[in-house]
Amino acid sequence: MITTDLLIIGAGPTGLFAVFEAGLLKMKCHLIDALPQPGGQLTELYPKKPIFDIPGFPSVNAGELIDNLMEQIKQFQPGFTLGETAQTLNKLEDGTFEVVTNKGTVHHAKAVAIAGGLGTFEPRKPTIENIADYEEKGVEYFIKEPEHFRNKKVVIAGGGDSALDWSIFLDDVASEVTLVHRRNEFRGALDSVEKVQALKDQGKIKLVTPAEVTGIKGEVKVTAITLEKEGETFDVETDYFIPLFGLTPKLGDIANWGLEIEKNAIVVNNALDYQTNIPGIYAIGDINTYPGKLKLILCGFHEATLMCQSVYNMLNPGKKYVLKYTTVSGVDGFDGSRKEAEKAVVKKID
Amino acid sequence: MITTDLLIIGAGPTGLFAVFEAGLLKMKCHLIDALPQPGGQLTELYPKKPIFDIPGFPSVNAGELIDNLMEQIKQFQPGFTLGETAQTLNKLEDGTFEVVTNKGTVHHAKAVAIAGGLGTFEPRKPTIENIADYEEKGVEYFIKEPEHFRNKKVVIAGGGDSALDWSIFLDDVASEVTLVHRRNEFRGALDSVEKVQALKDQGKIKLVTPAEVTGIKGEVKVTAITLEKEGETFDVETDYFIPLFGLTPKLGDIANWGLEIEKNAIVVNNALDYQTNIPGIYAIGDINTYPGKLKLILCGFHEATLMCQSVYNMLNPGKKYVLKYTTVSGVDGFDGSRKEAEKAVVKKID
Ligand SMILES: Cc1cc2nc3c(=O)[nH]c(=O)nc-3n(C[C@H](O)[C@H](O)[C@H](O)COP(=O)(O)OP(=O)(O)OC[C@H]3O[C@@H](n4cnc5c(N)ncnc54)[C@H](O)[C@@H]3O)c2cc1C
Ligand SMILES: Cc1cc2nc3c(=O)[nH]c(=O)nc-3n(C[C@H](O)[C@H](O)[C@H](O)COP(=O)(O)OP(=O)(O)OC[C@H]3O[C@@H](n4cnc5c(N)ncnc54)[C@H](O)[C@@H]3O)c2cc1C
Repeated sequence: MITTDLLIIGAGPTGLFAVFEAGLLKMKCHLIDALPQPGGQLTELYPKKPIFDIPGFPSVNAGELIDNLMEQIKQFQPGFTLGETAQTLNKLEDGTFEVVTNKGTVHHAKAVAIAGGLGTFEPRKPTIENIADYEEKGVEYFIKEPEHFRNKKVVIAGGGDSALDWSIFLDDVASEVTLVHRRNEFRGALDSVEKVQALKDQGKIKLVTPAEVTGIKGEVKVTAITLEKEGETFDVETDYFIPLFGLTPKLGDIANWGLEIEKNAIVVNNALDYQTNIPGIYAIGDINTYPGKLKLILCGFHEATLMCQSVYNMLNPGKKYVLKYTTVSGVDGFDGSRKEAEKAVVKKID
Repeated sequence: MITTDLLIIGAGPTGLFAVFEAGLLKMKCHLIDALPQPGGQLTELYPKKPIFDIPGFPSVNAGELIDNLMEQIKQFQPGFTLGETAQTLNKLEDGTFEVVTNKGTVHHAKAVAIAGGLGTFEPRKPTIENIADYEEKGVEYFIKEPEHFRNKKVVIAGGGDSALDWSIFLDDVASEVTLVHRRNEFRGALDSVEKVQALKDQGKIKLVTPAEVTGIKGEVKVTAITLEKEGETFDVETDYFIPLFGLTPKLGDIANWGLEIEKNAIVVNNALDYQTNIPGIYAIGDINTYPGKLKLILCGFHEATLMCQSVYNMLNPGKKYVLKYTTVSGVDGFDGSRKEAEKAVVKKID
């Protein structure tokens, strides 16, 4: 069982920054995320794209912003349960919370912050009759651990950035990469399209276009897929079939936790602390809603900060909190490190 | 007369970032600040100190953060009235606003955002009987334009960073710099203390410690000051006397504008849009108050953003606003410039 002060569901920018603000208040955090890596929409959907409205950054790449946040919170040693979905949430008799994931990992915490963004990302699945039978048996909608594919044959389907970028990446890992797309045209960064063209010209990636995967074969695991290209049908041997047709976010299990939901978002008290209708459970970032709500990264940062103050007050009743500026008081990490401004000296000049 | 969409009183980090958010919504901004430079507390009080709680910056110097914000808003060509204090604010019959400064500059705007921080900075003045007679006649509490002191004699009084840093700076400008402090010990960055020691050793700065300025002389302008050092009294000829004894913020004239004030701050509707009790006037950043308020830079950024949406809705009744991500839609400056993510291409691979 994992025990922490503040359990954060969702490791997007909002959840990550909450670790920092909680840390300033000496509260430990643990994060759960369904994705295999932290960063939420930024790392999953647009890691290489620039964002122009993060205050103080005339431009910052989404992946870089997440790297910076990870560096900023490092001192507070957050725990991570990655690649697992928070499935049930129960308030225990003593007022604390238990959250269990789809893989059975149990988390116990004094307070919960839901920073689940638009929800978990569900892959858009191709309409192949028996595809469900092969999930986790050769059919993969996410690439969690590229090493998995070392010296294996893979077929990737899709025509966007994910399909292009993973084809390029897996070319160095897999023994054979086949890229299937129903059109001849791909849509992505120019750079990526050109790299795939080059790898194809060098015979390193097999390209099958315009074509569609119409069937999957294999006794226990995938051993081949059936392709339909311009009226012809044929099989291609493969160990893995990776359809990358985009992701749709789904609120998922969170909708069943007894929280007040409006338009797929959790209603919070924005006039005070972003708490939900269940005391001790907060919702911050894209996942919450209130009058005037904007689904922007910078808003999640503010919400996380006020939320942490409220959690602190709840966990330390009667203790008077005095805001300390990081510039003045420095930042003491849980790892024993300290960041601080250079100290003024008092020194005689003579 | 200066005319704009949104008039911002206070050019600290909050006021500056508001220009960006307003710009995204195609609204022009003009800022008034009592200080000679933008940046508020950050440039006036701790420009060289690191801040550790700006999201995405594990550490950023205050001065650098302001430089970044100025770069970020450049595209939206904000106007500035610097070195002037907003003194009167009137709502005109047509619902627009007129703001006049202490120097008589008239500003006309459709909406007003007060981002005045802790107020204007009032210098702590030494208790010298006739000092008021010499203000702006040789007695200066701020250094607005260093060139003013070119080839002049200056006496600086004080024992902190400002006194040290301006002594060092003016050494290159003035014909003679005398630094007076009532103790032998100075309190400041080690680097600054050492530099003053070196300049003193080279005979470039005259140091008089422990001593106090007790009188000012001159027919029309300052021509000399009287010093008392260890019981002895003597005069020193000078063109300028610059006491740098620190600043205290004062809400000042803003308190007389009919706004609801609580504990030196303006009460706003944080459940919606940070509007004050007077429709069309908003208060953002350190100057506002609401339940749970934290006087932090990152909170001002969020408040500025929601405020701008509200102003937009007020100025564009009935127009439905759809939030656009900067990453997806880019940023179009009023100067004709455009920032945008590299475009995806649609390209055949064959
Ligand atoms: C293409 C694009 C461009 C954008 N451009 C901008 C921009 O320029 N500026 C801007 O401010 N915003 C932009 N956004 C929006 C921005 O990405 C979001 O506001 C931001 O990601 C919200 O952060 P978050 O941490 O609240 O949620 P998210 O980033 O969505 O992270 C939520 C995380 O929670 C996880 N999760 C959800 N439910 C569960 C569960 N039950 N169990 C475990 N994990 C769960 C998800 O897997 C996800 O990783 C853009 C979005 C997109 C898609
Ligand atoms: C030493 C120190 C360390 C700090 N460290 C941190 C930190 O680590 N993290 C953090 O988040 N915050 C920190 N702060 C607080 C931070 O500086 C403030 O939250 C921030 O400056 C508020 O920004 P603002 O734009 O709202 O107001 P300000 O920065 O105060 O700017 C307000 C501006 O309005 C002007 N003004 C006021 N009234 C008028 C008027 N009538 N007419 C014209 N101009 C007017 C003032 O001259 C001023 O320039 C620190 C503050 C200090 C003093």
